Amino acid sequence: MRPLFELQAVDPTGARAGVLHTDHGDVETPVFMPVGTQATVKTLTPVQLEELGARLVLANTYHLYLRPGVALVERAGGLHRFMDWPRPVITDSGGFQFYSIAKLNRVEEDGVRFQSHLDGSRHFLSPEDVVALEASLGADLVMPLDECLAWPAERGHAEAATARTGRWARRSRDARGPVFSHHGHRQFLFGIVQGASYEDLRRRAAAELADLDLPGYAIGGLAVGEPKAQMLDLAALTASLLPADRPRYLMGVGFPEDLVRCAARGVDMFDCVMPTRNARKGTLFTRAGRLVVKNADCADDLEPPDPQCGCYTCRRFSRAYLRHLLRSGEALGMTLASIHNLYFYLDLMRGMRTSILEGRFAEFQRDFFRGYRMATD
Amino acid sequence: MRPLFELQAVDPTGARAGVLHTDHGDVETPVFMPVGTQATVKTLTPVQLEELGARLVLANTYHLYLRPGVALVERAGGLHRFMDWPRPVITDSGGFQFYSIAKLNRVEEDGVRFQSHLDGSRHFLSPEDVVALEASLGADLVMPLDECLAWPAERGHAEAATARTGRWARRSRDARGPVFSHHGHRQFLFGIVQGASYEDLRRRAAAELADLDLPGYAIGGLAVGEPKAQMLDLAALTASLLPADRPRYLMGVGFPEDLVRCAARGVDMFDCVMPTRNARKGTLFTRAGRLVVKNADCADDLEPPDPQCGCYTCRRFSRAYLRHLLRSGEALGMTLASIHNLYFYLDLMRGMRTSILEGRFAEFQRDFFRGYRMATD
Repeated sequence: MRPLFELQAVDPTGARAGVLHTDHGDVETPVFMPVGTQATVKTLTPVQLEELGARLVLANTYHLYLRPGVALVERAGGLHRFMDWPRPVITDSGGFQFYSIAKLNRVEEDGVRFQSHLDGSRHFLSPEDVVALEASLGADLVMPLDECLAWPAERGHAEAATARTGRWARRSRDARGPVFSHHGHRQFLFGIVQGASYEDLRRRAAAELADLDLPGYAIGGLAVGEPKAQMLDLAALTASLLPADRPRYLMGVGFPEDLVRCAARGVDMFDCVMPTRNARKGTLFTRAGRLVVKNADCADDLEPPDPQCGCYTCRRFSRAYLRHLLRSGEALGMTLASIHNLYFYLDLMRGMRTSILEGRFAEFQRDFFRGYRMATD
Repeated sequence: MRPLFELQAVDPTGARAGVLHTDHGDVETPVFMPVGTQATVKTLTPVQLEELGARLVLANTYHLYLRPGVALVERAGGLHRFMDWPRPVITDSGGFQFYSIAKLNRVEEDGVRFQSHLDGSRHFLSPEDVVALEASLGADLVMPLDECLAWPAERGHAEAATARTGRWARRSRDARGPVFSHHGHRQFLFGIVQGASYEDLRRRAAAELADLDLPGYAIGGLAVGEPKAQMLDLAALTASLLPADRPRYLMGVGFPEDLVRCAARGVDMFDCVMPTRNARKGTLFTRAGRLVVKNADCADDLEPPDPQCGCYTCRRFSRAYLRHLLRSGEALGMTLASIHNLYFYLDLMRGMRTSILEGRFAEFQRDFFRGYRMATD
């Protein structure tokens, strides 16, 4: 069986270029995965997503389990059919949601006991349950149940949680194997390295998960409040501990600058609500940094959001028009801003990949930071 | 100079087919014009509108005057450039908004004194002011300032208002002529027949406006609360009073069944928030009548909203998916529902036009009502 990941090039910086081979098509890495929590990347049609060059979309098991229910999605033929996305899908287990939004979350050895944030109904899910749900959802890439900790995490707590996440990963793999198929296509199970800010826990977790010989690995529990420098160090450390021939997915990161820096640290896959959530609030990412298009200084500005950008929004509309739409509460404003921000992220990844393949990622990184004015952390 | 309207066929029922020749392209009639009040047809990109077959879009002078301001739109090159809609645009004067949403509206002989519904600021606009604003906005079809009355309207009040609307129409024409050009393309001024529910007032208004020899005529002041049968009778009467060689626009109407009935009464142009507003609230128009896709009976329904429909939404998505999106507050639900409803309206118009050209509109009407279950008035 053809493995999921093919490593194509490693730049002198350590940045990697590769391909994920899925039954819904290939995905070139490094890749940014737009977030489609509720089986929709907010405000966009699948056709618009496709035109942006999105290749892999992230949906969320916790959310879909609660609404509309996994049985419906399964009966529809899986997420690809339900949301009309013919390319690969990855599902997060909900580990992060149990930590962030579910009520009365209680982690037990056997799984997670929680109340729905929607209606307060009570639920219990074991690692095996979660894999079964994700099999039904039909994701190509499957994240197992894990325990994500708030920052800072007390040592004893982190140690126990990290060990449990390791045991859950093994149980998840034992349930259906590292690669399974529920809808006729292959579904690849990842392992998630936790360990909070403790290097030795990260090392231990990475080693344990490597033993499970999974098709891919994720770096979890970062971007949860820790300082940016620590995030970068821990991402770099964890990436370096993972098998070189497996894809490395840094969960929930981040700003454009974080993507560039973490790609340089050997990360292959990223997801974040940043581009879409900021878009809906009127903040655009441009080559010059962040542009708050909702601000008054854009009121009469007939320039495109980013004059160098090739996206639909920048080719056809002005800052003043976007501001007008966003101020007027018009949904099109959120759509056009989301189109721009996702294009910016996806284009950034394409630029990174090309420079990695050509062995000049350091130069790419320099050029990027020369033009880009960052917000402070 | 080529006239705006070319009448191509009159069906035995009285239904008409024609073409509006504008400098932004031809528009076949009967036509439904999606409402783009704030220079956006809510939730849709211009590309999506174009793909739906929309050919003429309605924007609103009152709203755009208050936000973002007409000067900005003018500097952008007019509405077509501002909103990236290369096809014809029609602007309503705001007469209906003064009546429906502006605060402290006071009609004087010289114009309308009102407070903004957004910030309470005070404004005065004369008929000449309104034409000047619409010239700057660059609409191809321009509605003059009129006085729209609530139903029922007292006789004396209706008489005075209708006469004033007639005087305002003459002043509007005298300001720049029946056809003018501010952005390099022709802009055609319409006359609006008011008269509340009084047939003699409608007759008098139609005759006075016909004397002005305007490129097109609108039937205003209907669908403001009067019984459906009265609306139909008054629309038919007013249409019959208007010059046969000018387009007839019934403002703010209506449900699909109203479009069919009023086309049979000789109306050429329609606009209504019905398809888009209902879409956003989860109600779809289908060949079988209205479908409240947000209702629980759609929860597990994997059929498309309208199995006979050729729109993007019906070809790719299920009722259950739409319901999931709408319940989850996902903007894509509103977009997909708007796509369907507008396609349904535009497709209905295309069907009407074909049957009129073939002289079998009565049959078309019969077939439509056979399948279509109407809501009660």
